[in-house]
Amino acid sequence: MKKVLFATTALVLSAGFASAEVSLSGDGRMGVVYNGDDWNFSSRARVTFTLSGQTDGGLEFGGSFRADQAGDSVSNNGAAYGSEGSVYISGAFGKIEMGDTVSAPEALFGDLPEVGYEDLTAGEGDYVGFAGLNGQGLLENDIPYLTGDSGATTGPNNPLLLYTYSAGAFSVAASLSDGKWAMGDNAYSATVDDAQEYAIAAAYTFQNYTVGLGYEVVDLPTGTTLFGDDKLSQVELAGVANFGNTSVKAYYAAGDDGNPVDQAYGLGVSSVFGATTVMGYVQKVEFTDAATTALGLDGATWWGLGASYDLGGGASVAGGISDSDLDGSNVTADLGVKFKF
Amino acid sequence: MKKVLFATTALVLSAGFASAEVSLSGDGRMGVVYNGDDWNFSSRARVTFTLSGQTDGGLEFGGSFRADQAGDSVSNNGAAYGSEGSVYISGAFGKIEMGDTVSAPEALFGDLPEVGYEDLTAGEGDYVGFAGLNGQGLLENDIPYLTGDSGATTGPNNPLLLYTYSAGAFSVAASLSDGKWAMGDNAYSATVDDAQEYAIAAAYTFQNYTVGLGYEVVDLPTGTTLFGDDKLSQVELAGVANFGNTSVKAYYAAGDDGNPVDQAYGLGVSSVFGATTVMGYVQKVEFTDAATTALGLDGATWWGLGASYDLGGGASVAGGISDSDLDGSNVTADLGVKFKF
Amino acid sequence: MKKVLFATTALVLSAGFASAEVSLSGDGRMGVVYNGDDWNFSSRARVTFTLSGQTDGGLEFGGSFRADQAGDSVSNNGAAYGSEGSVYISGAFGKIEMGDTVSAPEALFGDLPEVGYEDLTAGEGDYVGFAGLNGQGLLENDIPYLTGDSGATTGPNNPLLLYTYSAGAFSVAASLSDGKWAMGDNAYSATVDDAQEYAIAAAYTFQNYTVGLGYEVVDLPTGTTLFGDDKLSQVELAGVANFGNTSVKAYYAAGDDGNPVDQAYGLGVSSVFGATTVMGYVQKVEFTDAATTALGLDGATWWGLGASYDLGGGASVAGGISDSDLDGSNVTADLGVKFKF
Repeated sequence: MKKVLFATTALVLSAGFASAEVSLSGDGRMGVVYNGDDWNFSSRARVTFTLSGQTDGGLEFGGSFRADQAGDSVSNNGAAYGSEGSVYISGAFGKIEMGDTVSAPEALFGDLPEVGYEDLTAGEGDYVGFAGLNGQGLLENDIPYLTGDSGATTGPNNPLLLYTYSAGAFSVAASLSDGKWAMGDNAYSATVDDAQEYAIAAAYTFQNYTVGLGYEVVDLPTGTTLFGDDKLSQVELAGVANFGNTSVKAYYAAGDDGNPVDQAYGLGVSSVFGATTVMGYVQKVEFTDAATTALGLDGATWWGLGASYDLGGGASVAGGISDSDLDGSNVTADLGVKFKF
Repeated sequence: MKKVLFATTALVLSAGFASAEVSLSGDGRMGVVYNGDDWNFSSRARVTFTLSGQTDGGLEFGGSFRADQAGDSVSNNGAAYGSEGSVYISGAFGKIEMGDTVSAPEALFGDLPEVGYEDLTAGEGDYVGFAGLNGQGLLENDIPYLTGDSGATTGPNNPLLLYTYSAGAFSVAASLSDGKWAMGDNAYSATVDDAQEYAIAAAYTFQNYTVGLGYEVVDLPTGTTLFGDDKLSQVELAGVANFGNTSVKAYYAAGDDGNPVDQAYGLGVSSVFGATTVMGYVQKVEFTDAATTALGLDGATWWGLGASYDLGGGASVAGGISDSDLDGSNVTADLGVKFKF
Repeated sequence: MKKVLFATTALVLSAGFASAEVSLSGDGRMGVVYNGDDWNFSSRARVTFTLSGQTDGGLEFGGSFRADQAGDSVSNNGAAYGSEGSVYISGAFGKIEMGDTVSAPEALFGDLPEVGYEDLTAGEGDYVGFAGLNGQGLLENDIPYLTGDSGATTGPNNPLLLYTYSAGAFSVAASLSDGKWAMGDNAYSATVDDAQEYAIAAAYTFQNYTVGLGYEVVDLPTGTTLFGDDKLSQVELAGVANFGNTSVKAYYAAGDDGNPVDQAYGLGVSSVFGATTVMGYVQKVEFTDAATTALGLDGATWWGLGASYDLGGGASVAGGISDSDLDGSNVTADLGVKFKF
């Protein structure tokens, strides 16, 4: 829950101008996690800074990052260097955001529901076979988007640009990286070629249904190929349906060019019964023949099931269980309390 | 001094629900420190985030960490990863806290008084002979507790669990680590055996006196021994007496099993005269025969003496002197100003 | 724009004492930067903590640092360790500040105007020939001060001390490092000899003019020399003139002893036309014969030109262009939006 500092509001009222402000929110959790072998304690606490303001002409601007994403001068990482958090400016033309943003399709469709008190992931956290493919995008409840905040191209001084626009029932989005990796501390430092990613997406809402289509491309650096191709691409079809207190999300993704993913599909459900919410997901990724040969694996299926009970005031008890059919992966489970401040 | 954001209170009043909030406090200091050879400048500034909320059923929850403890995604350290700061939930059943907490006896008995404007330590900061024994627990004004926030078992995704409960004049506490070290970023990652620590403590207050007893155990990982034993243990007896403006704290600790400490004892005094507070401590640690042979040292004595003068508004002038009888340790002193915000 | 938390003010009003407080402000930016070869995206978001209080006797104290400067326990860097941010106490005697402060002359004269939305620097960010000379002080719009926050002597537990005092039209300043480098985590750790720096400066304002003189010395560690000398020194003459909405700043610096800079001089101009501000600078550094031989370079000239348009509410559009006559340096330019919160 965001805490807006009243000081600013008071200044606005008394001085008659729109003042920029910094507000604080936070989250925390603690509980136990079963990793397939042992139950372990796991806890954390975080604070988020939310920056917001308005120009005289009515444009809104701001940004957001967590205290742990602030960045550090030694490692040149974090929001102070454009590699975590983001800033934006918005108006009638839509919203332009830069930083560690999601890609265009993820901005419109999101991911499948998180389960557990600490965003539980099946034990393939230990499975490293995907590391050479597409980073964290192929894990747990995340839809395997090809671009965006998966870390593939976002780093210090290499932010992603995201544009979103909504008009009535229609929403569109586009995202773009600059295809260069800045060496050193500053954006004006020399750069080397890096993969360039771009993506577009559109969504349309009618009654209780939303459907959307996304298209993503990663252009590999000159002279680089993956599975014999100099680029990777993927198209996604996503749909959300709301029935009373139940929400269902489904997606289908088809890879092309050098994308190791031939196709992927998944389903997520979230349903509210009084103070209780139950959520689950299942998704399957099938690799191309070339990727199957390289990995010795033709695909994988993940699932997760969880529930949370709202204690009010920002606290809830939550638990979940998840697994995959990967060799060497274990069933994992957790149970704990989550806090919002 | 904690700054509670009024915004939240206002929301509570107007909307009729108990809202969670994030508040800010801070501290700073600057001055000069004599390290036995030279006078050096030393300063710092810090900010603390305090998170708090209440469930509909009246349970309180929250957490706390400093901005410098927020954690960083690169090094996987800090409050965002459970290795600094802590979170808690409390009610009629007591308080359950998880994170970088103190051990059960330290939760009830604390340490001896800090001296100097910057928690002055005798020059044994240079003495590395203890590094293989028990970490920072054997330094300066800290009572040499065997478990807890000394860093022995707390690390990323390896928080400590602390339970405390008070009823009238009685207080009890228990603390526990999970005995596993999570490899990698997540609590569901594979783990390796680590020392498991647990501790219990109780205290009773009558008139101006408090007495307490604590017991701590470190179970070493399977197949590991220290001084021929697969565990370390320690019992502590502590007492506090308040006479007018003077407070005296004394402790006696007796080690057993593989604990290199045979016995330790110390005394701390703090006395207030108007705006002036004088504080001091002396403590002695005696090693077991086995540890004496290994270290070439049968024990050590530390002492410190300091004073502070309250300037009001959160500022004070403070200075101190401390030393030990360790070879290669120097008398150290400091003088400076301390701020609370 | 600083956000003062009303909570504190309310406490002051109701309880009648001057309370210390922590307030938040922030900044952000996003846009494109041309590094001589490519246009790259660049964005960032930051938050600043400002600490302030007052003693019962009317002394003011406080400090300031950014969230990304908070420090981290692993790297022992940042405001929590005295190497970024600073703390101060002030009164009728002047202001004493300790931490990562500027040197005495920079405290009074500042630097030439920044250009661009992200403090644009000519492409000599790639030019490493100066690294062995004097760090970042020889770059872009910064006047090449010999001491202070250039990072030469400020590090963990090695803060700089700055004293400033103003009486009517006169201002004086003095700065000093302790000449020792603390090994390890604490100021009472053993130290090794380090360069000791000290500086003094004075300024006088009459009508629309301010003139000032500064003198800086770096005493190299015993047994160390640079260009055959055991110290470096530099004298600066600076002047500022304000004509209506235009401000002009000029400086002349003359090096002596082992200082590789024989002389340096520069001019900066800032002029406001309605919502538009135009700013520029040009400066030249000439090396001594010894440094010229060592570097294969007898000097360098930098210039920058920029403009910003105020959108109100803390937002502005800004852009700039800068270059130098260094071999291997490129013209650089940028354009983006800047935010103050």
